[in-house]
Amino acid sequence: MVGSVGNGLLDLGGREKVEPLPKEFDPEEIVDSLLHSESNIVGKEEDGTSRKIVLGRNVHTMCLEVKEPEADDEITGEREAYMAGVLARYRRSLIDRTKHHLGYPYNLDFDYGALIHLQHFSINNLGDPFIESNYGVHSRQFEVGVLDWFARLWELEKNEYWGYITNCGTEGNLHGILVGREVFPNGILYASKESHYSVFKAARMYRMECVKVATLVSGEIDCTDFRAKLVQNKEKPAIININIGTTVKGAVDDLDLVIQTLEENGFKDRFYIHCDGALFGLMMPFIKRAPKVTFKKPIGSVSVSGHKFVGCPVPCRRQITRLEHINALSSNVEYLASRDATIMGSRNGHAPIFLWYTLNRKGYQGFQKEVQKCLRNAHYLKNRLKEAGIGSMLNELSSTVVFERPKDEDFIRQWQLACEGNIAHVVVMPNVTIEKLDYFLRELLEKRSHWYQEGTISPPCLAAEIGEANCLCFSHKN
Amino acid sequence: MVGSVGNGLLDLGGREKVEPLPKEFDPEEIVDSLLHSESNIVGKEEDGTSRKIVLGRNVHTMCLEVKEPEADDEITGEREAYMAGVLARYRRSLIDRTKHHLGYPYNLDFDYGALIHLQHFSINNLGDPFIESNYGVHSRQFEVGVLDWFARLWELEKNEYWGYITNCGTEGNLHGILVGREVFPNGILYASKESHYSVFKAARMYRMECVKVATLVSGEIDCTDFRAKLVQNKEKPAIININIGTTVKGAVDDLDLVIQTLEENGFKDRFYIHCDGALFGLMMPFIKRAPKVTFKKPIGSVSVSGHKFVGCPVPCRRQITRLEHINALSSNVEYLASRDATIMGSRNGHAPIFLWYTLNRKGYQGFQKEVQKCLRNAHYLKNRLKEAGIGSMLNELSSTVVFERPKDEDFIRQWQLACEGNIAHVVVMPNVTIEKLDYFLRELLEKRSHWYQEGTISPPCLAAEIGEANCLCFSHKN
Repeated sequence: MVGSVGNGLLDLGGREKVEPLPKEFDPEEIVDSLLHSESNIVGKEEDGTSRKIVLGRNVHTMCLEVKEPEADDEITGEREAYMAGVLARYRRSLIDRTKHHLGYPYNLDFDYGALIHLQHFSINNLGDPFIESNYGVHSRQFEVGVLDWFARLWELEKNEYWGYITNCGTEGNLHGILVGREVFPNGILYASKESHYSVFKAARMYRMECVKVATLVSGEIDCTDFRAKLVQNKEKPAIININIGTTVKGAVDDLDLVIQTLEENGFKDRFYIHCDGALFGLMMPFIKRAPKVTFKKPIGSVSVSGHKFVGCPVPCRRQITRLEHINALSSNVEYLASRDATIMGSRNGHAPIFLWYTLNRKGYQGFQKEVQKCLRNAHYLKNRLKEAGIGSMLNELSSTVVFERPKDEDFIRQWQLACEGNIAHVVVMPNVTIEKLDYFLRELLEKRSHWYQEGTISPPCLAAEIGEANCLCFSHKN
Repeated sequence: MVGSVGNGLLDLGGREKVEPLPKEFDPEEIVDSLLHSESNIVGKEEDGTSRKIVLGRNVHTMCLEVKEPEADDEITGEREAYMAGVLARYRRSLIDRTKHHLGYPYNLDFDYGALIHLQHFSINNLGDPFIESNYGVHSRQFEVGVLDWFARLWELEKNEYWGYITNCGTEGNLHGILVGREVFPNGILYASKESHYSVFKAARMYRMECVKVATLVSGEIDCTDFRAKLVQNKEKPAIININIGTTVKGAVDDLDLVIQTLEENGFKDRFYIHCDGALFGLMMPFIKRAPKVTFKKPIGSVSVSGHKFVGCPVPCRRQITRLEHINALSSNVEYLASRDATIMGSRNGHAPIFLWYTLNRKGYQGFQKEVQKCLRNAHYLKNRLKEAGIGSMLNELSSTVVFERPKDEDFIRQWQLACEGNIAHVVVMPNVTIEKLDYFLRELLEKRSHWYQEGTISPPCLAAEIGEANCLCFSHKN
């Protein structure tokens, strides 16, 4: 295990270090290779600006090796004891990691105890949710119930929508963009530069022309730039990815302005809009003043994650599109006795049951309350940060608080903050309480007082990232 | 709920009917729309040869609607009671459906009770398994342990492989073929016509030229036809999908002959081979006389399913490729502090733990015993079918028994048989015992005596599908 060094060098372009194992893991007991020294893994460039990670090496820092059973294992019980020990320690580390978690938009506040007796079934929703396959151990009846609920939320009739519950968020975007490409095979994909990376991955996978559009300071798509790019490509239809909450700043693209820009520039009936509603797709419908995402507007598809706002122990996403688009994409597969318009054939059948359970339990009203709580707590965090002299920003319709990137990587990892350049963010989800935010703030302020002691370095200027008005660096604070 | 009719008509080209709900579901109690009549859903063509399924309609035959909570739910407890009732009935139907299951290659014999306390964590292996992200609630240490085990099985050194545990089998093929395309951007994809449908889906998604190759009666790729097709396209590199067990007949393509055909026809160093080892990829290494799948031969990637032979309650697949190919595909994503060479960004973190657990518990020897048992039981089934005068075929390295398609769709659904044209198959997995096969055979023979009573119709001829030697129809049985 020890000493295998990968042959691929890859520039990660950032300041990442490899995360050390949680303390609960006893290195000697589990794998001897845990005893690596960090300097073997993270190398500094000569100029100190970027680091490289040696592939194949950090593999072995975190591997729980599979070992062959000994001949006498059944008698001694050693194997069972070893595995039980590993799992118990892992569980403790999960508890700790779940507690210290602010950076990713996952609602970790759920209780699926009532579903525990279903966990050991091999539930698989093969192929199209709306057409039966012969495989009987499925959960389509829950899946369709969940999809109906979302179609109603986005105002598309039951007989006019098609959708499915995907295996993850990326799959939702891959599907929406693929539908767009099948509707307009020579269309150009437009996406703001703050779109999720899966959008650009899709363009590459699907061999589509892709045009990146500039953003405003808020993170929203810049429709002036969008117009300029459209005008340069008038001959080809447009496929547009709209962000209902960008990954980093939680910015909501102005759907109405995008549609207006398209129509004013000769693209009427020659565009397809996919709405990436990763997190806010489910929060916005509950905010009265929010612009409406609805199929009454000329959009083609919406997807929203299940493991984010709803909270679900497995990644998944609800993908809803217009039924009329699906025939462009589907092909017949007799083997499954099922049409196949999904990207992945086998789909985790547990996810729809988790979602069905939560939707039934909370209902529209329950979600509305949670959304309000999140927005309130996000404002609390932003205000406290400003009071403390820390540059920060909170978009009006968002619960993602963007602020100065903490100077210490251990602190970032401890709180599992997602960072980009000089900024970090906290996504205030239903499980993030005022108490947790206070705990975080106390730690941050205490550490920060050491990072920026008088006479040494100053906090970075964030004007480029969050605007002068939100920046509290030395030059902007007055 | 009732009466919404979809507007999309889709020819499914087969004899599928919509599966009725398991009997445990009380239609009145759950959703009133269950009271549909079959004739509304399945329409016969004028000539009686094919049927259409009305999309959007059969949705409502099986939907468990999400209902808004009543104001007094918290007091009356009605909602909790309703949900508990639905879930209990669903669980009973799962038990029944799991018991009557022969057609899909899923090993339903597993016990993950020891992992029950991990089920409620939101475990997500974002991005590349070999590079840490800041999201701490992951199971990469298990994932890498499982991948190491498989790399060893396929003889690729730790510092030379890259891989990940995907969300499903299709993703494994999508990834392997994408790697092939990135290595040879203008390569043509070759796949036998009995390849899994996801291979042809990949070609369409990725805008690749795709050439279908004929098969032998066994289901293996026909290398004479392969050679003829290669010669017509000498100017472009070849990307080949090799089946380690086809979906329908369990046929294993002759890897050595494919490589020889490529090299003899001027494709040396101009080809990429992806091995789709859906089920047999994990069984073959344990069969002494089986041709070896190994990275010591010039192959590019292998994938094998986790929910098939190993047995796992969620779909997943191990994807292993050469590290050198991965840089062609990866891009840097600072947001995750992780390179992204996977297709799906978020990945179910429970699956690697299930696999790690089973691999540790069973080890190589445990798998070997199970493989032997499956092959033995498959031979038993084939022999019993032949004795009963039913045409059937079993490829030497396979546990998939192909036989005459039962005439009755209810019987097919009852046993969840996968069918294609005149043939059906049973995949003998570790959970399929002699007792279960005897039960199945008794039912089949009893029903069959009614289907083919003297003086009426005869069983179909299967010579085209399984060869004259295996067919036992009226003209071939002597």
